[in-house]
Amino acid sequence: MEKIDNFKEYLAKISRYEQALSLIYWDLETYAPDKSVYYRSKALAELSEMRYNLFVSNKMAEFLAYFAQENILRDLNETDKALIKVADKEFEKIKKIPAKLVRNLAETTANANLAWKQAKENDDFSIFQPYLDEIIRLVKEEADSLGYEKNRYDALLDLYEPGLKTTEVSEIIAYLKENLILFLNKLLEEGKEPRDDFYKGNFDMNKQKELSLEALKFMNFDFSSGRLDTSVHPFTTKIGPRDVRITTKYSTEDLRYSLFSTIHECGHALYELNIPAVFFETPLDEGASMAIHESQSRFWENIIGRSLPFWNYFSTRIKLIFNSFKGLSSKDLYKGVNIVERSLLRTEADEVTYNFHIMLRFEIEEALINDKITTKELPLIWNDKMKEYLGIVPPNNSLGVLQDVHWSNGSFGYFPSYMLGNLYAAQLFSKLKQDIPSYSSDLEKGEATSIINWLKDNIHQYGKMVEPQELIYRVTGEKLNPKYFVDYITNKYTEIYNI
Amino acid sequence: MEKIDNFKEYLAKISRYEQALSLIYWDLETYAPDKSVYYRSKALAELSEMRYNLFVSNKMAEFLAYFAQENILRDLNETDKALIKVADKEFEKIKKIPAKLVRNLAETTANANLAWKQAKENDDFSIFQPYLDEIIRLVKEEADSLGYEKNRYDALLDLYEPGLKTTEVSEIIAYLKENLILFLNKLLEEGKEPRDDFYKGNFDMNKQKELSLEALKFMNFDFSSGRLDTSVHPFTTKIGPRDVRITTKYSTEDLRYSLFSTIHECGHALYELNIPAVFFETPLDEGASMAIHESQSRFWENIIGRSLPFWNYFSTRIKLIFNSFKGLSSKDLYKGVNIVERSLLRTEADEVTYNFHIMLRFEIEEALINDKITTKELPLIWNDKMKEYLGIVPPNNSLGVLQDVHWSNGSFGYFPSYMLGNLYAAQLFSKLKQDIPSYSSDLEKGEATSIINWLKDNIHQYGKMVEPQELIYRVTGEKLNPKYFVDYITNKYTEIYNI
Repeated sequence: MEKIDNFKEYLAKISRYEQALSLIYWDLETYAPDKSVYYRSKALAELSEMRYNLFVSNKMAEFLAYFAQENILRDLNETDKALIKVADKEFEKIKKIPAKLVRNLAETTANANLAWKQAKENDDFSIFQPYLDEIIRLVKEEADSLGYEKNRYDALLDLYEPGLKTTEVSEIIAYLKENLILFLNKLLEEGKEPRDDFYKGNFDMNKQKELSLEALKFMNFDFSSGRLDTSVHPFTTKIGPRDVRITTKYSTEDLRYSLFSTIHECGHALYELNIPAVFFETPLDEGASMAIHESQSRFWENIIGRSLPFWNYFSTRIKLIFNSFKGLSSKDLYKGVNIVERSLLRTEADEVTYNFHIMLRFEIEEALINDKITTKELPLIWNDKMKEYLGIVPPNNSLGVLQDVHWSNGSFGYFPSYMLGNLYAAQLFSKLKQDIPSYSSDLEKGEATSIINWLKDNIHQYGKMVEPQELIYRVTGEKLNPKYFVDYITNKYTEIYNI
Repeated sequence: MEKIDNFKEYLAKISRYEQALSLIYWDLETYAPDKSVYYRSKALAELSEMRYNLFVSNKMAEFLAYFAQENILRDLNETDKALIKVADKEFEKIKKIPAKLVRNLAETTANANLAWKQAKENDDFSIFQPYLDEIIRLVKEEADSLGYEKNRYDALLDLYEPGLKTTEVSEIIAYLKENLILFLNKLLEEGKEPRDDFYKGNFDMNKQKELSLEALKFMNFDFSSGRLDTSVHPFTTKIGPRDVRITTKYSTEDLRYSLFSTIHECGHALYELNIPAVFFETPLDEGASMAIHESQSRFWENIIGRSLPFWNYFSTRIKLIFNSFKGLSSKDLYKGVNIVERSLLRTEADEVTYNFHIMLRFEIEEALINDKITTKELPLIWNDKMKEYLGIVPPNNSLGVLQDVHWSNGSFGYFPSYMLGNLYAAQLFSKLKQDIPSYSSDLEKGEATSIINWLKDNIHQYGKMVEPQELIYRVTGEKLNPKYFVDYITNKYTEIYNI
């Protein structure tokens, strides 16, 4: 066996621990009985530590040192070269984090997740607060271990979008504010809000599921390599090769919630499912970054799922499931999924206001991580910022500071990925339209294959081989440019709101 | 920290690998997408090997050597003494099995399980046969590694019922044949078969589930520490502390199938759930043996679930769910769950014929393990033995040699546990009736707590502390005695069949 094959077998060993860990996480979010969490979190911690130890072992260091030799490296094929680079980068990163911290984070977040669920259910922030304090303490320790030049928060941003800096996020936010605040105000003051009453109400859960399955069928989701389940907060997880699971949530108040959650998560799933088999059980078997991942989910959810061509097709499907839609046109249904409003929940926010939800989270996270504020003040600060950015104040904490799962998972630094994902998606869309002139008529026929293949050829097939900025440059010929997003938004909503 | 606490922490570490493994197994049987199995089986193998390595490590050997010192051992409390004994026995046993074999078994059985499912679905034994060959090869290697005095099959029996010998099983079988064959013939020739047409048909699956939930409620099953799902073959698995999951299967032909599967599996679950918390994450946190385990499941399924007092209560519950039962008496419903017939499937067999299904499996396993027959001949041999023992021949292999999951899991030597379980259950029941004179009127009120507590006090609370034969002796005052079972059967069915 060649040395590179030995190395891949070693990486596969690590990947198998990751599979077990992913399954435990998935189970905790979907089916695990409540009382199991305490002990299961210890199992998570145990396996996380082992995964960590395998990754930062002397054996790993020896492999990487061997392949760092120029005369060895140059004989590898391009994929294997990328593999060495990505593994080395991961090695350098995680060996900075102490094993004890990895273990503590795994155990604490598993318990915190349950506390968060209870806090949200009971609208009682105090249930979650002590866990959040502990998580922030650990995440700060993580950031300090990883190191940073100017801002501790940079170390966390880098975990999800390599190289992204706090200052860059601030610049993007400034650009978006400059170009969208006035537009939003005009739209809400002068525009004509479409009808959406027909989407509201307590729709039968089995029929909601049927609708989600229709959307998944349209997106060619492969049930022999994945599943659809329900959870408090919809998510996608790759358990391992040929096993990507998504969840949704059936709302008792609005049909759109489950439909667009399902489409969003399936966008993530297609990315993972289209990574080539040669990457399986290696560090290349994942997306380029969280922002690129979100560009895929937001692309499907918004740019496709909330487009008129899609609804010219999907309106016939939805009418087969729900009689109440019979008298409505495709355009009615299309406009009804594009209501712009100052709303409470990020996951239910429209495309125009969505980034404002991210801005407040970004500011709060940056302040928490740099000890500018405490968790005690958090509900108040949240509500103040909601008022500032969105002009409304949550009536309770469940609909406010407790709405997102991320902090209970320790995922500080993740939220900006959603914003970048929106921007990347619009930039990719601009190129896709040039490359596939028939995209719109394909969609009207319920045919998503041309789009799926374009995404596969341009994004998915590279897995983690190519860095996010480089990937976007290769596909679109320029670096991240928020102009595409602003253009997309202003054109689309000027038409819908008739301003 | 005291040395014994260090040892327990080390055992907990091992237990956490077992939790991950149990979850992967459970997932493969319930929710895992088909194409995930190939890679998941590699993860299983990886973790199985690690679990094995931790168990037979030098560290484990050092702990056990330390506690083997008389002056150390004598100062431990009774529980800790038992823990050392059980851990030592397990250590001595599994260190005989080579690591490579453990890994091969885990990987092969995961793939074989999928092949078995496909073979069963398509009624095609040839899909499963090569996997079965490989499993038998590995299981023989396992038996040879473990060692035995007279019969290679003894080494496998010992895995499930410590100390049980092939000759003992043969003796029990001879006793049962002598005392039950004539009775069975008489019953089927001269007895009056009760009606059971009302249980047959395609009952609504959601209502079947409701009925299962009623039975679980009666048995005080705690859903905050467990779940009910569906699988091809009903089973119970303890994922870890406070997490015991059962499955059932909703038949489209017979209402009794799911109901009694659920009760059976819940019998297993109550055993595991009632083991005290001080045993958690140690080798004491399981049942005394598989036969004792089956005594619990068969006790609930048959001795309680198929008793008149239970149906005096449960008939009102079943009528609330299914209108079609309205005109039937408790006694009709009771008799209808006690039909004796020469049938094809072990899991659907009645109490009188059940052990005959075990006898043929015992003989086939013993012959396979000792190379007296080959898997190629298996379908034919199965059918011949069915004719000999039960007087009928399966119309296809799905209803014949492919019916059970056990061989695909590598569980050779398990089947006799069911038979012993039946015998233990009857022996325990005889004692329970003396200890709880009110048991029958309690049941009629839907009150199972007195029985649950009796089982907890006499069996469950000991976990694996006490060896099976010793446990039965302590509770009933004598060793395993098949007479109780024969008496129970002949009394019950003489009355039902009016002979």
